[in-house]
Amino acid sequence: MKKTLQPQPLMLPLPAVLVSAQYQQRRSIITLAWAGVVSSDPPRIGLGIRPDRFSYDLIAKSGEFALNIPDTSMIEVVNYCGIKSGRNVDKFSDLSLTPIQGEYISSPMIKEAPLNAECKLDHLIELPGSHHLFLGEVLLIHADSTVLNDQGRIDPQKADIISFGGGAYWKIGEKAGIRGL
Amino acid sequence: MKKTLQPQPLMLPLPAVLVSAQYQQRRSIITLAWAGVVSSDPPRIGLGIRPDRFSYDLIAKSGEFALNIPDTSMIEVVNYCGIKSGRNVDKFSDLSLTPIQGEYISSPMIKEAPLNAECKLDHLIELPGSHHLFLGEVLLIHADSTVLNDQGRIDPQKADIISFGGGAYWKIGEKAGIRGL
Repeated sequence: MKKTLQPQPLMLPLPAVLVSAQYQQRRSIITLAWAGVVSSDPPRIGLGIRPDRFSYDLIAKSGEFALNIPDTSMIEVVNYCGIKSGRNVDKFSDLSLTPIQGEYISSPMIKEAPLNAECKLDHLIELPGSHHLFLGEVLLIHADSTVLNDQGRIDPQKADIISFGGGAYWKIGEKAGIRGL
Repeated sequence: MKKTLQPQPLMLPLPAVLVSAQYQQRRSIITLAWAGVVSSDPPRIGLGIRPDRFSYDLIAKSGEFALNIPDTSMIEVVNYCGIKSGRNVDKFSDLSLTPIQGEYISSPMIKEAPLNAECKLDHLIELPGSHHLFLGEVLLIHADSTVLNDQGRIDPQKADIISFGGGAYWKIGEKAGIRGL
């Protein structure tokens, strides 16, 4: 017998990613858990962002953003960028994060995050409700070599990724199986 | 110094969820990793599905689906439902899964998954490229009491959730921090 729970945005695991963006002289970083992959070809990710967030306009006006996947040493950064607004502070300076330039976008990526993706906004869907949906095409990925396995593939354990759920952050655990029949 | 990798749909962690749907006399289950939350209010989730998948029409025509969050005892089900097509088989029967009825939708939920959500399709966005984007509002959640913590909140460790990445499935690990400054 199951218990019923009030409707809530159920998905597990949830990511906790850092999205950085710049428009003209202003840059910022926002932590998002409402984020996921939308399509394989083109490689496209989706981000749900509230219209009143400072980063909303930076992405909407510049037409680009960087996706940064943090590791568990960055929990403080993840918390700060999810809770504080960038309207009156520069989060890169505040948190002593190192901005690095990509090849295709002007928005700075976060050097301290082991994985970064340069993304071009290709759809902004103004949904009714709390969040609008930003879709972005992944143009190029930058990866610390330490997070790659012998086949050059990203290894979630080596990347020490953060899962978010139940108000807490979680480390990735042991391998539970391999994809394939 | 980072290595550049060819564009790929980067997001970590990725979920591995089972979506079940029924239209008229046909039902099926599809495993998806291109899935995430889109908005809080309404609670809305997004699913990327290839137009040639059997479940695509079941969801598009019925206007509803069930989201089922599996645990790591269900890796074989997750693999099967991600790889086999439901066009010629009934996956519930094939895998001896128990269909249960919800309150708001006709599509069967999977009893063996500890978490289920009844969802109503509210947008189908025919994106250019490999996958179309289905957005669904969560109407009600059904949870095994074993996956809830003392506050009645879903606990990712108790739910024994599956993360997907690098071609493998992963257990959830230890707590890395709490949300809040």
